[in-house]
Amino acid sequence: MNAPDEKFARLLALARAPFPSASKAYLQGGRADVRVPVRDIQLSNGSVVSVYDTSGPYTDPALAIDVRRGLPALRAPWIAERADSALYAGCAVHLLDDGGKQAARDGGRINPLRQQAAALQRQPRRARGGGGVTQMHYARKGIVTPEMEYVALRENGRLQWTREFLGDARREARRRGNPLGANLPERVTPEFVRDEVARGRAVIPANINHPELEPMAIGRNFRVKINANIGNSAVTSGIEEEVEKLVWAIRWGADTVMDLSTGKNIHTTRDWIIRNSPVPIGTVPIYQALEKTGGVAEDLTWEIFRDTLIEQAEQGVDYFTIHAGLRLPFIHLTADRVTGIVSRGGSIMAKWCIAHHRENFLYTHFEDICAIMKAYDVSFSLGDGLRPGCAADANDEAQFAELRTLGELTQTAWKHDVQTLIEGPGHVPMHMIQANMDEQLKYCHEAPFYTLGPLAIDIAPGHDHIASAIGAAMIGWMGTAMLCYVTPKEHLGLPDRNDVKQGIIAYKIAAHAADVAKGHPAARARDDAISQARFEFRWEDQFNLGLDPDTARAFHDATLPKGSSKSAHFCSMCGPRFCSMKITQEVRDYAAAHGIDAQDALAAGMQEKSAQFQAQGGALYVPVAPTEARSA
Amino acid sequence: MNAPDEKFARLLALARAPFPSASKAYLQGGRADVRVPVRDIQLSNGSVVSVYDTSGPYTDPALAIDVRRGLPALRAPWIAERADSALYAGCAVHLLDDGGKQAARDGGRINPLRQQAAALQRQPRRARGGGGVTQMHYARKGIVTPEMEYVALRENGRLQWTREFLGDARREARRRGNPLGANLPERVTPEFVRDEVARGRAVIPANINHPELEPMAIGRNFRVKINANIGNSAVTSGIEEEVEKLVWAIRWGADTVMDLSTGKNIHTTRDWIIRNSPVPIGTVPIYQALEKTGGVAEDLTWEIFRDTLIEQAEQGVDYFTIHAGLRLPFIHLTADRVTGIVSRGGSIMAKWCIAHHRENFLYTHFEDICAIMKAYDVSFSLGDGLRPGCAADANDEAQFAELRTLGELTQTAWKHDVQTLIEGPGHVPMHMIQANMDEQLKYCHEAPFYTLGPLAIDIAPGHDHIASAIGAAMIGWMGTAMLCYVTPKEHLGLPDRNDVKQGIIAYKIAAHAADVAKGHPAARARDDAISQARFEFRWEDQFNLGLDPDTARAFHDATLPKGSSKSAHFCSMCGPRFCSMKITQEVRDYAAAHGIDAQDALAAGMQEKSAQFQAQGGALYVPVAPTEARSA
Repeated sequence: MNAPDEKFARLLALARAPFPSASKAYLQGGRADVRVPVRDIQLSNGSVVSVYDTSGPYTDPALAIDVRRGLPALRAPWIAERADSALYAGCAVHLLDDGGKQAARDGGRINPLRQQAAALQRQPRRARGGGGVTQMHYARKGIVTPEMEYVALRENGRLQWTREFLGDARREARRRGNPLGANLPERVTPEFVRDEVARGRAVIPANINHPELEPMAIGRNFRVKINANIGNSAVTSGIEEEVEKLVWAIRWGADTVMDLSTGKNIHTTRDWIIRNSPVPIGTVPIYQALEKTGGVAEDLTWEIFRDTLIEQAEQGVDYFTIHAGLRLPFIHLTADRVTGIVSRGGSIMAKWCIAHHRENFLYTHFEDICAIMKAYDVSFSLGDGLRPGCAADANDEAQFAELRTLGELTQTAWKHDVQTLIEGPGHVPMHMIQANMDEQLKYCHEAPFYTLGPLAIDIAPGHDHIASAIGAAMIGWMGTAMLCYVTPKEHLGLPDRNDVKQGIIAYKIAAHAADVAKGHPAARARDDAISQARFEFRWEDQFNLGLDPDTARAFHDATLPKGSSKSAHFCSMCGPRFCSMKITQEVRDYAAAHGIDAQDALAAGMQEKSAQFQAQGGALYVPVAPTEARSA
Repeated sequence: MNAPDEKFARLLALARAPFPSASKAYLQGGRADVRVPVRDIQLSNGSVVSVYDTSGPYTDPALAIDVRRGLPALRAPWIAERADSALYAGCAVHLLDDGGKQAARDGGRINPLRQQAAALQRQPRRARGGGGVTQMHYARKGIVTPEMEYVALRENGRLQWTREFLGDARREARRRGNPLGANLPERVTPEFVRDEVARGRAVIPANINHPELEPMAIGRNFRVKINANIGNSAVTSGIEEEVEKLVWAIRWGADTVMDLSTGKNIHTTRDWIIRNSPVPIGTVPIYQALEKTGGVAEDLTWEIFRDTLIEQAEQGVDYFTIHAGLRLPFIHLTADRVTGIVSRGGSIMAKWCIAHHRENFLYTHFEDICAIMKAYDVSFSLGDGLRPGCAADANDEAQFAELRTLGELTQTAWKHDVQTLIEGPGHVPMHMIQANMDEQLKYCHEAPFYTLGPLAIDIAPGHDHIASAIGAAMIGWMGTAMLCYVTPKEHLGLPDRNDVKQGIIAYKIAAHAADVAKGHPAARARDDAISQARFEFRWEDQFNLGLDPDTARAFHDATLPKGSSKSAHFCSMCGPRFCSMKITQEVRDYAAAHGIDAQDALAAGMQEKSAQFQAQGGALYVPVAPTEARSA
C-alpha cells in the first residue's frame, strides 16, 4: 500500500469499530430495498435501547467497504425506476476544477489525484427534457417516494419499543414538551412526510447523482438535525484528512456534512467525500467559482458560477448554499457594523456587487439557478451572507432585509419545485433569538430554518462550541430544523479530528435538548433509559447509552479503573458513604421490606418500627472495605 | 522544602502568573481600605478593557503570599470597628473533626496535619450577647457597611470606561437586554446594595471569621455569579490538590467555592481553603456530621449537627447548605421516581427521617440554626434535597413541595436577619425551566435562586458541563442569581484540575450569556471589544479579551504557530483568500476612498466607477504569497 492507502486503512479501522455493546439493525420498509439503519444498544439487564443512526454502512461489520470505490448505491434502483432522468456525458474535466490556475484551463489536463480514484467517477444523470426530479415535485404530485418512506421509518425508529419503554401514564404528562407551534405526530407516516415536503416545510436533500445517500428529512416537525462542516483550506489539510473527518463526523451523529474546501484539489476532494458519504453533502459553490478566477471576486461571472453549479450537481452535491439574498441595496446597511460581513460567500458577493455597481448575479439569475437545481434535485440552502458576526450587529436591518429577500426567493424556488432551506445566524444574544425565529417563520413560509449556532456571547474563543450550543438548543426548540455545528476552533483555525467530535457532541446535546423540549415522541426514551441505568448503578449501560461512550468510560476509569468498580454502588465523585442513589435505594428497600410508608409514619409516630430499623441499621448500610475505597 | 511545600510552590508559580497583557488594578472606595480589584487588559491599539476579577491577591505580583499563613485579613478592621462581636475560645479541637473514628473523640488528640499549619489557626469571633452581625441586620438598620460599598464598586467596574466604550446610541437600543423582571440600575450605589440586602433579594456571604474575603453579592439585580465545587472524597484527592483547585477555580472566574470534602482531614482541609480564599466558601455541614457518626445516618443527632455548624462557623464558612425543607411527609413522593433522591444531603436526611419515623431535625430545629447563623453571619443556602436527578423526575410534587417549604423557612430566616439563598435543580428539560423560576419567585419572595445547572438532557455523560450550561444560561436570564457549575466528570468521577477549569469556563459562558440577555449595563462592552479586535485582526487582543486566553492562543497556534501569523489578515479556518472580514475591510476601504455608496450606486448604475474599480482590483486584493500560505 502506498501512503494514502495506509492512511485510509487506519481510518477505517477506527471508524468501523462497532459502538460498545451495540449492533446495527435495519427497519424493513414496504419494499425490500428500503432498509433503515438503527443502532441497538444492548443493556446489561437484557433490554435493548434503539437509537437513530447516522453512521452509515461503516458501522455494519457485515459490509465490505473500500473508500477508493465508494459506498453501495442503494438509491440507484429508486431513481432509475422513476424513469424521468437519464445518464449523459457531463462536463468536460478541467484541471481548473481542482484549483488549477486560469492558464491551465485546457480541458486536456486532469488532476493526477483524480485519475488515481477512477472507480469514484460516475456518469452523471439529470432530468429528462427539462423536467423536475425533486422530492418536492413528486410530493406535490401525490407520489410517496421510497425516500419518503425511508424518512418516515427513520424518524419513528423502533416506535413499538419506545412506547413500551415509556409506559407510565403519570409521567407521560410531564414528558410532553412544549412544541411551540410544531406539529409532531405520534407516528410519522410516509404520507405525512410527503405532505411536509409538498408544503415546503420539510426538505429531503437527495441529489439523483448521490445514490449512496441514506435519506433524511430536515423540518421543524421532525427530529432536529445537525450539520458538520469539513473541508480543507489553502493553509492546511488534505483529501485523506477530509474523508476521515466525514466518516468520523457521521459516527458521532452529523446528519449532513458540508464540504467547505477552498484549496487545491477541490473537485477531487469532493468526489472522495460524496462517493463515501451516506449523509447529504452540502457545498458553497461560490468558493470553487472563486478559485477558478484565481481568487479575484470581481472576475466572477454568471457563466463561471453556472458551470460550477452543474459540475457539482453532476458529482452529487445534495444542497448548495447560495447567497442570492445579499442584494446590492443592502450592502451599505453593513457600513457601521462592528464586524461587517462575516459570511465568506457574502463578502465575496458584496465585493462583486460593489466592484461592478450591479445587482448580485445570484439574485438576477435566480430562476436560471432553479432550472439547474430541479434537474438534479439539489436543494437550496439560501445563504445568510449578511448574518451578524457579533452581538453588536445582531438583528439589524441588514440581516432582516436579507432574510425577507430569502422569503421571496423561497417562493420562486417553490414555483420550480426546488426544495429550500433558509440559513440563519450567527451571533445572537439569548434575548434576541426568538425574533429571528419569528421573522423567519413570518417571511419564509415555514421553509426549514438552518442556523449556525447562534453564539450567545462573543467572548469565548476556544470554547465557542459551548457559547453556540446554548443558542442552538434554544432556537432548535423554537422551531429551527437543522443546527450547523461550531467547533472549539471557531474563529481561531481549521478544526482537526478531535475538534470535529467536540463540535458534534455539543450539537447533538443541543439538538436533543430541543427534541426533548418540543416533545418529540421518541426523544425522551433514551434519557429515561440512561437515568434508570444511573440509578441502578449499571455503569456500562450508562456509558453505552450516552452520546459519547468512549469519553464517559475514560472519565470514570480515570479514578476507578478496576473492573470491579463497574458494579460498585458509588463513584469517585462522592465516594461510597455519600452516594445519594445508593442511600435512596437502601431507604426504598427497607421501606418495602418493612411495609413503611413515610406519610403514615408521620401520623402514627411508629416508635416500634423505628427501633427495629435502627437495630438493623448496620446491616442496611454496607460499608465498603477501606482497601477497596483507597485502591483508586 | 518537604513534599507538600514543593507542591504548593508549583501551584503558586502557576496560579500567580499574571494574565497575558493584563494587570491587576484597584478601584478606590470612600475609605482607604476599600480597594476593589479589577483586571485591566491592555490592547495593542492602546485602549484598556477592564473586567470583573475573582482571582484575589494571587494575580497581584506586588503581594507576597504564603499559603501556609493565609491571605491578608482585609475585612478585619471593618468587623472590629462594628464592635458588636468578640473573640472567644471556640470549640475544643477533636481528631473526630478530621474524620477520625467515634472512639477517637478524646479531645486531646489533634490531627498532625492541622498542627503543621499553626499559622492558619485563628481565634474565632462571634456576636456579642446574642445579637446579630449579619449584613442583613445592618442593612435593615439602614447601615451601609464597607462590604456593601465594596460590592457596589465591584458590580460597576470601571463604569466610566464602559460608557465611553459603548458610545453609539443607535446600537445602544439593541444592546439593551430583556431583563424579565430584573431591575438593573445604570450605576449600582452602596445604598442600592443595602436596599437589596435588606429586602432579602441579595446576599453578601461574609462570615465575620472569614476576614480574608473580598465581598461579592448574589442577587438577580447583580451580575450572575457562578460557584465551583471542590473537595476531596474518601476515594481520592488530598489537601494540596484542593487548595490548588481553589486558586485555580478563582483564577478562571469562580465567584464562590463550595468545599464538599467528605473524606479524611475534613476540618484541616477547610482551614487551608478558607484561610487562602478571597471568595466566599460554602459547605454542606451534614457531610462532616455524618463522618462523625462513622457514616451511619441514623446515628445523626441535632447535637452532633449543631456542634458541626459551630465548628465550621468558627472557621469562617460563609454559607451552609442545609436540607431543612426535606420534610418527612415529602419522602414518599419520591417513591416512584426514576432516580429517587439524588442530593447527597437529601438522601442522608431522608434515611434519618425514615429510620426514626420523625420529622427532619433540621426543620424542627430551624430557629436554633438561625441563632447560630446570625452570630457569625453565615448565610443559608437552603438545600433542594428533593431536586430531580433526571428529566423524568423534573418539576414533580416532591420537588415543588420542598421548594414551597424553603419559602416558609426563608421567612423564618429573615425574621432572624439571616441571609438566605434557595438552591434549585438539577435535571430539567428546557421547556420546564421557566416553571422553576416562576415557582421560586412566587414562593421564596425573591430570595436569590442558586441552581445546579439545570441539565437540559440526561444522555451526555462526559459532556454534562455543556448539557447543563444550556439550562444554566436560560435560568440565569430568567432570574437565577448564581449558577453552580457542572464539570465534564459529573456523574462519573471526581473532577481534576482540568475538569474544574472546563466546568468554570462553561459556566462563565452561561453567566455572561445571562448578563447580556438581561441587559446588565457593563456586560456587553467586553463582547464589543473582542468583536472589534476580531474584525481588525488584532489576534493577541482577541485571545486576551477572551475568557480563556491560553486555550484561544494555543488553538490558533496549532495551525499557524509563527509570530507573523498574529498580524495576518486571515486564519487557517478559511485561509487568506476566503477571509470574509478581510474582504469586508477591502470593500469598505475602497468605498471610502472612492466615495462609493452602494445605495446610490444601484440607482445610478455608475459604469464608470465600476470600470475604474476593476482596473484597480488587483491592487485592492492583495494575494498572499503561496510560500506564506503554505508555510503553516
